[in-house]
Amino acid sequence: MDISNNESALIITHKNRTIFKHSAQNPSLFLGVGEANYDMYRGNFDITDYVTERLPLRQYTVEETGDKTVITFNFDGQPAIKMLLSETAESRLKAEFEALDPKYNRFWFRVAATEDEKVYGCGEQLTYFNLRGKNFPLWSSEPGVGRNKDSYVTWLADTKDKAGGDYYNTNYPQPTFVSDKKYFCHLETTAYADFDFTNDEFHELQCWNIPEYLLLDAEESFPSLVENITGVFGRQPELPDWVTNGVILGIQGGTEITLEKIEAAKAAGVEVAGAWCQDWQGIKMTSFGKRLQWDWQWNKELYPELDTKIHQLKEEGVRFLGYINPYVLEDFPLYNEAAEKGYLATKQDGSKYVVDFGEFYCGVVDFTNPDACEWYKGVIKTNMIDFGLDGWMGDFGEYLPTDCSLSNGVSAEIEHNKWPYRWAKVQHEAIEEAGKTDDILFFMRAGGTGIQGNCHTLWGGDQLVDWCIDDGLASVIPAALSSGLMGNGIHHSDIGGYTTLHGCKRSKELFQRWAEMAAFTPIMRSHEGNRPGDNHQFDTDAETLAHLARMTKIFKHLKPYIKAASKENSERGMPVQRPLFMHYENDTEAYEIKFQYLFGRDLLVAPVYNQGEEVKKVYLPEDEWVHVWSGKTFTGGWIEVDAPIGQPAVFYRKASKDVELLSQIAAI
Amino acid sequence: MDISNNESALIITHKNRTIFKHSAQNPSLFLGVGEANYDMYRGNFDITDYVTERLPLRQYTVEETGDKTVITFNFDGQPAIKMLLSETAESRLKAEFEALDPKYNRFWFRVAATEDEKVYGCGEQLTYFNLRGKNFPLWSSEPGVGRNKDSYVTWLADTKDKAGGDYYNTNYPQPTFVSDKKYFCHLETTAYADFDFTNDEFHELQCWNIPEYLLLDAEESFPSLVENITGVFGRQPELPDWVTNGVILGIQGGTEITLEKIEAAKAAGVEVAGAWCQDWQGIKMTSFGKRLQWDWQWNKELYPELDTKIHQLKEEGVRFLGYINPYVLEDFPLYNEAAEKGYLATKQDGSKYVVDFGEFYCGVVDFTNPDACEWYKGVIKTNMIDFGLDGWMGDFGEYLPTDCSLSNGVSAEIEHNKWPYRWAKVQHEAIEEAGKTDDILFFMRAGGTGIQGNCHTLWGGDQLVDWCIDDGLASVIPAALSSGLMGNGIHHSDIGGYTTLHGCKRSKELFQRWAEMAAFTPIMRSHEGNRPGDNHQFDTDAETLAHLARMTKIFKHLKPYIKAASKENSERGMPVQRPLFMHYENDTEAYEIKFQYLFGRDLLVAPVYNQGEEVKKVYLPEDEWVHVWSGKTFTGGWIEVDAPIGQPAVFYRKASKDVELLSQIAAI
Repeated sequence: MDISNNESALIITHKNRTIFKHSAQNPSLFLGVGEANYDMYRGNFDITDYVTERLPLRQYTVEETGDKTVITFNFDGQPAIKMLLSETAESRLKAEFEALDPKYNRFWFRVAATEDEKVYGCGEQLTYFNLRGKNFPLWSSEPGVGRNKDSYVTWLADTKDKAGGDYYNTNYPQPTFVSDKKYFCHLETTAYADFDFTNDEFHELQCWNIPEYLLLDAEESFPSLVENITGVFGRQPELPDWVTNGVILGIQGGTEITLEKIEAAKAAGVEVAGAWCQDWQGIKMTSFGKRLQWDWQWNKELYPELDTKIHQLKEEGVRFLGYINPYVLEDFPLYNEAAEKGYLATKQDGSKYVVDFGEFYCGVVDFTNPDACEWYKGVIKTNMIDFGLDGWMGDFGEYLPTDCSLSNGVSAEIEHNKWPYRWAKVQHEAIEEAGKTDDILFFMRAGGTGIQGNCHTLWGGDQLVDWCIDDGLASVIPAALSSGLMGNGIHHSDIGGYTTLHGCKRSKELFQRWAEMAAFTPIMRSHEGNRPGDNHQFDTDAETLAHLARMTKIFKHLKPYIKAASKENSERGMPVQRPLFMHYENDTEAYEIKFQYLFGRDLLVAPVYNQGEEVKKVYLPEDEWVHVWSGKTFTGGWIEVDAPIGQPAVFYRKASKDVELLSQIAAI
Repeated sequence: MDISNNESALIITHKNRTIFKHSAQNPSLFLGVGEANYDMYRGNFDITDYVTERLPLRQYTVEETGDKTVITFNFDGQPAIKMLLSETAESRLKAEFEALDPKYNRFWFRVAATEDEKVYGCGEQLTYFNLRGKNFPLWSSEPGVGRNKDSYVTWLADTKDKAGGDYYNTNYPQPTFVSDKKYFCHLETTAYADFDFTNDEFHELQCWNIPEYLLLDAEESFPSLVENITGVFGRQPELPDWVTNGVILGIQGGTEITLEKIEAAKAAGVEVAGAWCQDWQGIKMTSFGKRLQWDWQWNKELYPELDTKIHQLKEEGVRFLGYINPYVLEDFPLYNEAAEKGYLATKQDGSKYVVDFGEFYCGVVDFTNPDACEWYKGVIKTNMIDFGLDGWMGDFGEYLPTDCSLSNGVSAEIEHNKWPYRWAKVQHEAIEEAGKTDDILFFMRAGGTGIQGNCHTLWGGDQLVDWCIDDGLASVIPAALSSGLMGNGIHHSDIGGYTTLHGCKRSKELFQRWAEMAAFTPIMRSHEGNRPGDNHQFDTDAETLAHLARMTKIFKHLKPYIKAASKENSERGMPVQRPLFMHYENDTEAYEIKFQYLFGRDLLVAPVYNQGEEVKKVYLPEDEWVHVWSGKTFTGGWIEVDAPIGQPAVFYRKASKDVELLSQIAAI
């Protein structure tokens, strides 16, 4: 770190990157006062801010105090905020902030930028990968249905359910970005934030409180950078071994149906690693579709004999997975118990607070109360792990209402974005305490800073069963890449998508294309969708079953390759799905490729995400790439390959040490 | 005016209204710095502002200097802006502003409010009449197609043409509001402004420059208030006598068709005051529909013998009206002449600037150049008035691009909102210089401060040929009422609406309901719409002709009543269409009635604006009201009357001095 303070200009550099350029004429730090309004409807937020003051902090003084450089910014002759600069033990730049006037609740910090710079990250971003040219509100919410105001589905979702969303809506926002200049920058805050990458000369980071600190570090390569990042936020454990044995089939409807479907799949040659039955604790019917009975215990009526069958299945090599989320259904046993013990968030006056989840209401387990966490961990351990579940979807986490009251006394506006982390931690600890970290798989869609060390894997949320770019198959790819750069190296998605509304029904072709992509991700898992009857399913016809069978065999064939990548992720934070620039940093084109990825070091995957497309245009960075199906070698640039159903555009690197394994894919 | 400056709080009152409450703790004046971005597509603007500074001016000093009280507001120890308070000769409160630092280009001023206060005006507002609870961006633009983000038509218009608009979009914004506390408040600026009425304790007036002054006055009654307002902004002249002789038929297609249609209408009993042929100077076909050839001279091919027929028609009692706007079609004679003389707006480097009007391009006549104004007045006098036109639509005025260069050196951002005024003034002066103010009718949709004294009548712009509340028949009523309160007392609309797009086609019922409303406005004028073939027209069938005939007879019957109202408007600014509270100020319900109006003093009109509605629910302020068709008397409150086609819900006041005339309506 170097601080230069000449001619009234303050310039901070770190590892040769200019981070902060500030002067009285061009201030880079602003404080202000705002009044936010948060309007939530079923996880969709309409947020407005009335900024009454935004003050440039032109004047400053610099002071050396022990191991920190203290810069005091003044406003109107009064000290307004202190920035305490230091290098951490790991040589990261840390700028801590201390508010000197409690009235300020808005903060803007400009990180120096260059016009051609590209940035990535901000959690899991589904529409943009390179974020330059846009601003990104960072607030955990439903991701939106359609996610594009020009799409008819988005308009329908907006007008019917306030649910259309936009390019920035995400279950997992994180106030951290990665620059193509090989540095990362993190703002430690869980308040509403907005990172604005529209300006040529700076990135403006806004948040609705005074952040604790800004953390920044640079490296000489992208692999070193993700290792550094995950050194900060934590790393996911390795995937349980059984996950790469085949597909996890999303099934609903009870014990008999589940066993039948598993048998039929196996008979058709499908490699089955598990059955994921989200309705294991019973169902509710709503106009949205089939919903679950959120009381987190085995439902004997719908799943008779599951207590014994679950163990038989496991012996046969098929794991059984369930479902849970951090809410408890009003007037059901867990709700009543939690309410009685005072483990639920309340209204400000201490009275009952339930959240609308769409024709039913739930209590919010108050994870700021350590006793409530212990209790919920107990629920997970007793009702789920001890029962025999080997995994679950750890759904939701984005719905903390901003007007509820929490045990730790912190405003729910500040806790909202932290909730996914708290929810992940409860699950992680329950598993850890059960000694099952290496064997249980749980997956979340919600996320935030610190989720990395607690959530074992992400899934991409609720895509439309549709081809649309912003909310269909394609959107899962930037989601995997952006969250991967944040340290979430294990990512996957519902094969075939989830949201079956507004006329969208899953076609056979979409299911097959999605399955082809999933075979080249660390987890294969299907989902029936919210209206199963409207969707093409894995067992709708023999051709689909045969296609899936082949894709699961390819996936299983890649087991050692995927396990090695998962290990690398757990040890060094190297994501399993990687942007092309991770290993080809001199390739300028690679920085704009958002619908292709490297799967491990040596496979390049370009999923077909357009309906009816049978020839795929692919960008290959300079290297020797062998087209998996034709065996033809390419050396880089934009090329075209045939990509009929069953032959997704996948290439392996000729120089791979796994070339034998990878060259066998075509023969499967 | 009273200025109290006690205990560091500054309170300004005028005629017992508290206008301004300011203290260091609760400042009511803010200055700032912003960078606006204006993106125009065919008159639809996408405007964003990046406010980098918003500074509360907490400290102030008060000084008496001659006839003004000077309040200097300081920021950071430096004087930032002066407010010079005085009473004008007419005893209005005037607060002039003088910037003391040129860097400030954003201004926020809080007018003290009470929680239950209601406000009106802001130019011509089509969705809301009482503006409280919303903010109103004030920028002249296309008004939008659909104007409601929840409507499918709006979505289609947005995605296809960026043209959907929203509740605040208007051709005629004006930074002036009227309070139910019987005061008006005007901010003298033509910059982009936004009046925010969402706060309980103040109205926040924002503009994107330092305004010249704020002007405010209060009266004891609403009639006195509109007289005061029009004392500031000017008053419209009286309607030409011939206008109330019948309907002005919107006809296109040439001399023969026009004469035929006039004859047929007259034969069916329609009282015809004029024929309005917007294509008198020729047409262009575009995908939008039939468009006009913007070269502003008689087109002999389309209108053969018009030079003689126009006089014959006049002798037969039918005036001929044309069309003009402030743009000249690229490469046509007027364009070439203007370009050669340097009368067109240019790019910043002085090179050619043409504006996209939808598949054709035009030059913008530079009305900041007095010579250009004289030239355009000459065009109007020679090509239109001397040719024999007795009126025209003075279309457009909202498209001044913000990045063009103008003769007077003022930024086009500042000139944009002034352009409708400049355009009106050119037309008004041309007519005045021709000595025809009392005989020529011209009507505009665009407007702004000062239009009142120059534009002889407004029409409500381009409604959808549809029943939708925000952009159909209903929307014309708040438009008339709000612009009327600003001093534009003569307002009317296209009978049947105009915009025929996105599947909207005008039905017979809509045409008839609109004609019924028009009979109770100061001008009856029909329009074929942009796609005449898709619309029901006045002569589509005999029943429609007969219905229109009756409505024109009623209108003509009301001639003396309407003329008296028009005279009152020209003399005292009393609008012909008035909100109920104008004469019933103690009736609290009256302040929320936006789809009914008083037509003159003694008629109450509640147009049917819903499809299929045959019974109309009407609110009557306390008085004796006689239902025109049944003769039944009502004394006030919410009532219901039959309102089949041909019997719009209209009531006259029993105490009217015109009771004889009004009681005869039913017999027509």
